[in-house]
Amino acid sequence: LCPPGVLPLGRRPLAWGRAAGQPLGLPLAPARAFSNNKVLVELDESSGVAMMKLKSPPVNSLSLDLLTEFCISLEKLENNRACRGVIFTSAIPKIFSSGLDITEMCGKSAEHYAEFWRAVQEIWLRIYGCNMVTIAAVNGSSPAGGCLIALSCDYRIMVDNPKFTIGLNEAQLGIVAPFWFKDTFVNVVGQRIAERSLQLGALYPAPEALKLGIVDELVPEEKLQERAAAVMAQWLALPDHARQMTKSMMRKTVLDRLIPHREEDIQRFVSFTSKESIQKSLRMYMEMLKKKRS
Amino acid sequence: LCPPGVLPLGRRPLAWGRAAGQPLGLPLAPARAFSNNKVLVELDESSGVAMMKLKSPPVNSLSLDLLTEFCISLEKLENNRACRGVIFTSAIPKIFSSGLDITEMCGKSAEHYAEFWRAVQEIWLRIYGCNMVTIAAVNGSSPAGGCLIALSCDYRIMVDNPKFTIGLNEAQLGIVAPFWFKDTFVNVVGQRIAERSLQLGALYPAPEALKLGIVDELVPEEKLQERAAAVMAQWLALPDHARQMTKSMMRKTVLDRLIPHREEDIQRFVSFTSKESIQKSLRMYMEMLKKKRS
Amino acid sequence: LCPPGVLPLGRRPLAWGRAAGQPLGLPLAPARAFSNNKVLVELDESSGVAMMKLKSPPVNSLSLDLLTEFCISLEKLENNRACRGVIFTSAIPKIFSSGLDITEMCGKSAEHYAEFWRAVQEIWLRIYGCNMVTIAAVNGSSPAGGCLIALSCDYRIMVDNPKFTIGLNEAQLGIVAPFWFKDTFVNVVGQRIAERSLQLGALYPAPEALKLGIVDELVPEEKLQERAAAVMAQWLALPDHARQMTKSMMRKTVLDRLIPHREEDIQRFVSFTSKESIQKSLRMYMEMLKKKRS
Repeated sequence: LCPPGVLPLGRRPLAWGRAAGQPLGLPLAPARAFSNNKVLVELDESSGVAMMKLKSPPVNSLSLDLLTEFCISLEKLENNRACRGVIFTSAIPKIFSSGLDITEMCGKSAEHYAEFWRAVQEIWLRIYGCNMVTIAAVNGSSPAGGCLIALSCDYRIMVDNPKFTIGLNEAQLGIVAPFWFKDTFVNVVGQRIAERSLQLGALYPAPEALKLGIVDELVPEEKLQERAAAVMAQWLALPDHARQMTKSMMRKTVLDRLIPHREEDIQRFVSFTSKESIQKSLRMYMEMLKKKRS
Repeated sequence: LCPPGVLPLGRRPLAWGRAAGQPLGLPLAPARAFSNNKVLVELDESSGVAMMKLKSPPVNSLSLDLLTEFCISLEKLENNRACRGVIFTSAIPKIFSSGLDITEMCGKSAEHYAEFWRAVQEIWLRIYGCNMVTIAAVNGSSPAGGCLIALSCDYRIMVDNPKFTIGLNEAQLGIVAPFWFKDTFVNVVGQRIAERSLQLGALYPAPEALKLGIVDELVPEEKLQERAAAVMAQWLALPDHARQMTKSMMRKTVLDRLIPHREEDIQRFVSFTSKESIQKSLRMYMEMLKKKRS
Repeated sequence: LCPPGVLPLGRRPLAWGRAAGQPLGLPLAPARAFSNNKVLVELDESSGVAMMKLKSPPVNSLSLDLLTEFCISLEKLENNRACRGVIFTSAIPKIFSSGLDITEMCGKSAEHYAEFWRAVQEIWLRIYGCNMVTIAAVNGSSPAGGCLIALSCDYRIMVDNPKFTIGLNEAQLGIVAPFWFKDTFVNVVGQRIAERSLQLGALYPAPEALKLGIVDELVPEEKLQERAAAVMAQWLALPDHARQMTKSMMRKTVLDRLIPHREEDIQRFVSFTSKESIQKSLRMYMEMLKKKRS
């Protein structure tokens, strides 16, 4: 499946953009936007780059609705041959995404929990296994599920502001990150940093996150979009097909740990979430959040 | 087994200390000490932190006696619900632990070798899989088995003194570190550093060990206990249950490589150690050590 | 298979050089050279160190001939008990090796492609699993297969010149590095750096390669041989047997992913290379190289 390669002193010789032999599909249209309630998408068909902005006030929590729209938008782009790369960012100041929406996990039916968890799996599978180049332009804090989205991309650029934090902080809430959150994290920062960070449920200020390798670079807020576009252009200078096969080869092991076990993973989530002790904890937490905001 | 987690912007809301629903057991007694010949244990029941000091002159070599007492002390703490974290350190100046006691491997019966090796496995399994938070306060040199103890903890603080060295130096003696020493090392420093260090049997001065990630931080000798206590407090600020499940999820793969194969591993050790060539080497090495000390 | 080890405060006590009990074979001859057309070998039997210089102008591309001679030379050294370590370097200025020779992959028969690929596998298996200490003295650029040779050594020293680059740049040519190139790379730099580098087909200037861990150190060009010899002496100060068993234990997993699947891997290469689209790409690339050189 992974034909071998080589070649000396090579400098981007062959199939720029689309791999050789792949038609580009229909003639390119000018840049155009489509959006639904919570996800704004702008696709620049000349560059092949889409910008996907999460816009679900107040904090882009990953509700079932947002996750569903997110998946649909991503699928649309994947089916659009004019799109080769996606930049994920937030339309809300100071927050990239606050992670999974607790209200989806509280006081609902087992069926609801299952549907919600399937959507969480789906967004991870789609981003981590995405054929397009994926860049996270992290323009605010990004705990838990927000961090997972960033970790699942090919590259992470964060605003250079120590007030913005990022990390898988589940343990701080008495919850355990699922194994595929952990696998994704280990692939980015290695076992030692992942062990410590997950056990501490650590949220790192941007400069610390850079040192640990959680993000790849920091830029001033006003340069974020420009820098994301520049990095994307660098990745898109490569032929798609070889890059896609390389990515697939490298992420297959981790993806394959979940794919055949999705239903078990859902059952585990449902039975955990349905526990009265967990429901109680989540209610208390939501109360605390409400007070904090008012 | 690993319920999924999440939650936005979280700040230690739920079950401080013991996980929700877990009784704390009997009322807390004030700090108290217990000890046997070679291991001093002080448990501060108010903080839930035990200090375990190895005291087996001259160099804390891990004899069968020391290992047995070490295991028993650790088991006692694990069964004491008032204890949530352990700090390992040495009561002997300049040496944390010199590693396995060669005299246990020399001129004894196969039964003795087997018993000794089972004790070595046991201490590793107990520390690496420990439910409590484990911190190594490395206040002296820590070769071979001494290094393994440190590597098996959640966090390693070493005295900032280049005269103190740490590493898995087995290869220098013509011996091969067992695969579970290697797995533990790779999880801490990654494959490249582990390959080089194990092949060279390298003992690194503390500052070098910090650079390579073998230890997590250095402090002046007089600050070591204070700093270990501060780090422990940070880890204990998290609810136990989620932290324990996270740790178990992360270390399971490596633990499971030994657990079902303990007897084979013992047989391997016994037949290796019983070889006349190895016995000869060990005798020569002991002679050399004796001369050095006298 | 991997007897356990230990020992405190150890300082090279036992079997210097050859492991205890291993005869040194015939009496040592003075340093002598042997060479064939493309590989120069000088063995200093007093130190046990061989220098192997690739000399296949203009750019040391890894043709079937060069690979075959390379393998034979390495096998000779392995069978020579007087040889304990090998330093790989280039006899051609500014280039270590340009990687696989494209002409071997272009316009030839399926049998030829199969024979060529078997030779590529063979050189990797021999270097990555080499019982001798292997050091790459990278005295020029080292893309693709040239980089693989360096990555497969125990240690990499590169000339401190930003004009010299190193990396697995296959993706830049629309080709995918085989999984065992990838495994070797991940073992050296970890998953995150390997993912990014392979997808970008990145060639890094020497200083950047050092930062990423692709090479272990940089030295001025005129110090390269001296430094390689000094590092080799450090490695050879250890007893061979324990070092060899340690290396074998650490690299076994990755070697075992290819060894039982060599024929499948060859078939994959042959059917990929035989594709008309790939042949066309390679012809275009060769045209481009020819123009560049003239």
